[in-house]
Amino acid sequence: MSHNSFGHLFRMTTWGESHGPAIGCVVDGCPPRIPITEEEIQLDLDRRRPGQSRFTTQRREPDQVRILSGIMQETPDGPWLTTGTPISLVIENVDQRSKDYSNIAGAYRPGHADITYDAKYGIRDHRGGGRSSARETAMRVAAGAIARKVVPGLRVRGALVQVGPHAVDRSRWHWDEVARNDFFCPDPEMVPVWTDYLDAIRKDGSSIGAVVEIVADGVPAGLGAPIYGKLDQDIASALMSINAVKGVEIGDGFATAMLRGEDNADELTIEDGRPVYLSNHAGGILGGIATGQPIVARFAVKPTSSILIPRRTVTREGEETEIVTKGRHDPCVGIRAVPVGEAMLALVLADHYLRHRGQIGA
Amino acid sequence: MSHNSFGHLFRMTTWGESHGPAIGCVVDGCPPRIPITEEEIQLDLDRRRPGQSRFTTQRREPDQVRILSGIMQETPDGPWLTTGTPISLVIENVDQRSKDYSNIAGAYRPGHADITYDAKYGIRDHRGGGRSSARETAMRVAAGAIARKVVPGLRVRGALVQVGPHAVDRSRWHWDEVARNDFFCPDPEMVPVWTDYLDAIRKDGSSIGAVVEIVADGVPAGLGAPIYGKLDQDIASALMSINAVKGVEIGDGFATAMLRGEDNADELTIEDGRPVYLSNHAGGILGGIATGQPIVARFAVKPTSSILIPRRTVTREGEETEIVTKGRHDPCVGIRAVPVGEAMLALVLADHYLRHRGQIGA
Amino acid sequence: MSHNSFGHLFRMTTWGESHGPAIGCVVDGCPPRIPITEEEIQLDLDRRRPGQSRFTTQRREPDQVRILSGIMQETPDGPWLTTGTPISLVIENVDQRSKDYSNIAGAYRPGHADITYDAKYGIRDHRGGGRSSARETAMRVAAGAIARKVVPGLRVRGALVQVGPHAVDRSRWHWDEVARNDFFCPDPEMVPVWTDYLDAIRKDGSSIGAVVEIVADGVPAGLGAPIYGKLDQDIASALMSINAVKGVEIGDGFATAMLRGEDNADELTIEDGRPVYLSNHAGGILGGIATGQPIVARFAVKPTSSILIPRRTVTREGEETEIVTKGRHDPCVGIRAVPVGEAMLALVLADHYLRHRGQIGA
Amino acid sequence: MSHNSFGHLFRMTTWGESHGPAIGCVVDGCPPRIPITEEEIQLDLDRRRPGQSRFTTQRREPDQVRILSGIMQETPDGPWLTTGTPISLVIENVDQRSKDYSNIAGAYRPGHADITYDAKYGIRDHRGGGRSSARETAMRVAAGAIARKVVPGLRVRGALVQVGPHAVDRSRWHWDEVARNDFFCPDPEMVPVWTDYLDAIRKDGSSIGAVVEIVADGVPAGLGAPIYGKLDQDIASALMSINAVKGVEIGDGFATAMLRGEDNADELTIEDGRPVYLSNHAGGILGGIATGQPIVARFAVKPTSSILIPRRTVTREGEETEIVTKGRHDPCVGIRAVPVGEAMLALVLADHYLRHRGQIGA
Repeated sequence: MSHNSFGHLFRMTTWGESHGPAIGCVVDGCPPRIPITEEEIQLDLDRRRPGQSRFTTQRREPDQVRILSGIMQETPDGPWLTTGTPISLVIENVDQRSKDYSNIAGAYRPGHADITYDAKYGIRDHRGGGRSSARETAMRVAAGAIARKVVPGLRVRGALVQVGPHAVDRSRWHWDEVARNDFFCPDPEMVPVWTDYLDAIRKDGSSIGAVVEIVADGVPAGLGAPIYGKLDQDIASALMSINAVKGVEIGDGFATAMLRGEDNADELTIEDGRPVYLSNHAGGILGGIATGQPIVARFAVKPTSSILIPRRTVTREGEETEIVTKGRHDPCVGIRAVPVGEAMLALVLADHYLRHRGQIGA
Repeated sequence: MSHNSFGHLFRMTTWGESHGPAIGCVVDGCPPRIPITEEEIQLDLDRRRPGQSRFTTQRREPDQVRILSGIMQETPDGPWLTTGTPISLVIENVDQRSKDYSNIAGAYRPGHADITYDAKYGIRDHRGGGRSSARETAMRVAAGAIARKVVPGLRVRGALVQVGPHAVDRSRWHWDEVARNDFFCPDPEMVPVWTDYLDAIRKDGSSIGAVVEIVADGVPAGLGAPIYGKLDQDIASALMSINAVKGVEIGDGFATAMLRGEDNADELTIEDGRPVYLSNHAGGILGGIATGQPIVARFAVKPTSSILIPRRTVTREGEETEIVTKGRHDPCVGIRAVPVGEAMLALVLADHYLRHRGQIGA
Repeated sequence: MSHNSFGHLFRMTTWGESHGPAIGCVVDGCPPRIPITEEEIQLDLDRRRPGQSRFTTQRREPDQVRILSGIMQETPDGPWLTTGTPISLVIENVDQRSKDYSNIAGAYRPGHADITYDAKYGIRDHRGGGRSSARETAMRVAAGAIARKVVPGLRVRGALVQVGPHAVDRSRWHWDEVARNDFFCPDPEMVPVWTDYLDAIRKDGSSIGAVVEIVADGVPAGLGAPIYGKLDQDIASALMSINAVKGVEIGDGFATAMLRGEDNADELTIEDGRPVYLSNHAGGILGGIATGQPIVARFAVKPTSSILIPRRTVTREGEETEIVTKGRHDPCVGIRAVPVGEAMLALVLADHYLRHRGQIGA
Repeated sequence: MSHNSFGHLFRMTTWGESHGPAIGCVVDGCPPRIPITEEEIQLDLDRRRPGQSRFTTQRREPDQVRILSGIMQETPDGPWLTTGTPISLVIENVDQRSKDYSNIAGAYRPGHADITYDAKYGIRDHRGGGRSSARETAMRVAAGAIARKVVPGLRVRGALVQVGPHAVDRSRWHWDEVARNDFFCPDPEMVPVWTDYLDAIRKDGSSIGAVVEIVADGVPAGLGAPIYGKLDQDIASALMSINAVKGVEIGDGFATAMLRGEDNADELTIEDGRPVYLSNHAGGILGGIATGQPIVARFAVKPTSSILIPRRTVTREGEETEIVTKGRHDPCVGIRAVPVGEAMLALVLADHYLRHRGQIGA
């Protein structure tokens, strides 16, 4: 019941604030003898790293990860292998620049967790977002890089599918395109549209919401634990825990409200002696259990509340005021949420893989 | 990490299949000295009970709850009070009629959990939905009736807000109306529209999806436990665990993808010396912690896959076939999901109330 | 973190008071397709059942168990198999006789949990032990009967090894003898000694403590989860949770305080190409992980505080008084603790078997 | 269900191996606004630190703790306060000297966890104890220093009460004496006896077992959560998880096996209008719940298996051999277990304090 842990058998515990000396996490329950290196984890971290384009925060963080425990070489030249004991990962905070936030120390930023953290804990972290900062999500990505290796044959990919009013055209979807632009956009024709749109948002000092889609291939049928450890339930929990997320859906999601039974249920046939689905409205999950089809999840990311447009707010002392957030922030936090969403889905699947194996075996 | 338990400090464990002798649940962690009676729980159960109109399943279940432990009278005439020990609730299954389902024993129903339960457990419950049946949700409602009493001043209400293409008009929203129709509909002018629409769906032997909205008033600011016990995260988990749910959103939800920062962040002012929000786009939660505003959550319910329209499917033995589900089912399972959604939100809030009190006191 | 649940992957939740209508438990996480019947569970329950000799409580309870969920027959003549979903077990309370306890309603029994339950919950169960009664242990035995079947090749046996000053002679230990006397005594020559000794204790209206030993054979090497899910740690937790237990030890236990390193460490040799231990001071566990040798645990059971000898105490209202407990109780509660201890060890091992399989596979 | 975490609401997760770059822990769930400094934690760590006398390991570790998150100053001169978010603690390993262990890389040390870790994880940490090393207990002491501050008025003290055959005389018990000698010995007359005895053990290259006693004053009546979160159950779990512990007892412990009911039950009387116990055989716990009297727990520590006396063993490759452990080790590991035992009891009490407050309030 740890508030800062996620997962059960494969479990990540994160710690650290945006303006402290470091952030980190402990990954517990990882199976032994899985090869893993700092370099592999770094590859995923680099995809999330800030400051890579003008569309994400200009905070400069190398985000260099170190592994402090839980791996070893059996021989001096052998591969680094997990030992089955806790893996401790740490990233130093380099560019914390507390001063940028000095103007917000007294007032609560509208739409931000300043006021609720204060309501809960009775203490105000004036140095920035503190624990509520999206900086914490770097550790999710690092832990997710390990999680990806736990389920044999698993591939988890994500893409940005909507920015403000501009949604991708699914007929033009190319996974290869995702790595070629600054937006994790799978539709090449949408890239210039988003570029222009986000430049305008940025110049306005404003921000905009987005929708992210994550797809997992190679998920074994049977993963998921009804009634209260359903796979879709845990995915919803995982994705909703990401900063700024306000909605989650699986498969056809909210669109099923307008579907009739015969249009929603995925029919089955036999191919090569095995059951095959004729569609995937379910997004790979029925009754909380994986069907073996790709798992498809989407989540909505609200626009960040850290903007240059003045907003009405109040101070801790109970006075009305106006606020402008001058820190370095993202015009569209949905972009960097793509690798975070991938990591969270990978974490859910690694956990359920071990949970399923525990109850059912093999 | 129990698969059939929900919550941490206030915790419900459910058991039972649709066609066994009974279903039940154990509520653990309830504070002592809370007055509760079977009659109070029955009131909530009666709102969910099947067979109350032609728009819900015709299965006839009195759903009479019994409390087997965890409450006592201090004196012969005193009120029944919780003792702080586990509360065991049981409902006998009266009208299980296994025979109705005999035709589906061999084939998997498309869109249903038949096939995934079999993939997971290697055993086929030919008597009906077994553990995956929505009958299990009766116990959520029963446990939720207790949860409602744990948080002082809490009120949790729900309504059906969309059926197929027909959404309510929020300008005509009246909570009192919800209890006056067969749909938990808050918009009196929508009632005849849904009546006609669902009659047509029913005559077609089809089914239709829906959207449910749950609102909680009186939630103390500060509830919620970042980073991985966020209030919205746990609400997403709770609602996604309900049968047939494919999407969950909080506050403005998916609509935030199209909002700019200045339109989404709820501004603050001071009234009577206390901070007051000028809007509630956030749905009562910031950074995973309650703001003190009403909590607003919505979820999409897919159309049930148990329909009279023939669909292609396969048998356990690997043969192609066609299926029609002749059992008694709901044309719109979203209707009866309303009290279930209320119960799940109440359960989340009771748990977080105790968790917050544990860490913070007061 | 449920207070009335034990185990993680294989998990038991118990409910019920000694003087309510029934007691019960829910077993969650059991692997599917394990054959189990009410009759098998009943065999274990009958070993613990009260009223079988003059040395245990004269309360007459048939303790007839019913399984309400979680098992099914695939065909009308097929065996009852677990389905992988929660198994609900219930035993009705028949002979609750609240009146016997009417004299103790006002005063706290010294050495009993009356006063601490009241301190915790602020409510006094005047009908007897309520939730603190050893009657709850019937459900541990029932759940343990299922747990025994989860680990292939596992055998868990227990014996009473000391009653007051009279300890068994290990050179005369015969497991077959345990089922032949009223004490679960493995030493035939000790049986008449205990008979005379306990008759005297009973005539005095007094009670006496005891030591129970539980041995598990067939535990696979590797079970156990360092650092905080150590096998010995969880065994200590399991056995200490039994009513009236005040001490737990593994292998040589407290005697190791007087041993030198060379006398305590179990040496190893090779037989038939495999490592073999030359002794078992460790009781089958090193570093919290099973060695593959028999697991040996002992626990001390205090004398019951329900005796006919007057003792000084106080009332809820703060007055001094004297108390005699006239209810039907056990002169040596250690006797009936033997099957309970077996059950608890089986529950720990079933849980760890699934936990190990989850992380490691195979 | 994290294997390397302890506690529920107040929760510690430890990581790190004896020969890696660092060890550390994350303390989650700590209430906010508790003043804490690195210096305070260091005081406790220094009591456990190796190399302080010839009776403990000569490994030289400054054990300097750093706090990386979870505390802040509200003003530049204000006290460091907990924020309610995870507290990350790290200690660098300075003197790891892997070479000392090179001779044991191939053979399993009898009585040590080498062989069981290998059986479980299939990987051999040739650098020393790895994760099974008692070095991990430094983090328990660090986390315990925070735990001590969570329960108002709590005082947890420990003492060594037996070394080999030499037990302290309780009539000569002085808590002040504990800090004045190298053994945490409360009996001044026993100090020279143990000095001579341990010098002889050390010269023999052997080791010896011990018994530690921990006492907690100021524990509020009512802490503890029956049936499976009993206070004594969790204490047993906590103490049995310490390296080399083979037995745990509460109050009169194993001695109760020889007591009659009238001699074991603590009688009550009224003083100043409040109930007062006339004895404390129960060790402060009845029915798993604190009585308000001092909590008294003892545990037996086996002699370390790292000795200079040759012992028969086997290699990983299945060959018989003989082993002598030349590393720097403790003749009596029970000595340094005293502050570790205190920390574990403090951790249990902090957790139960929050759990009780969660369910009951106040």
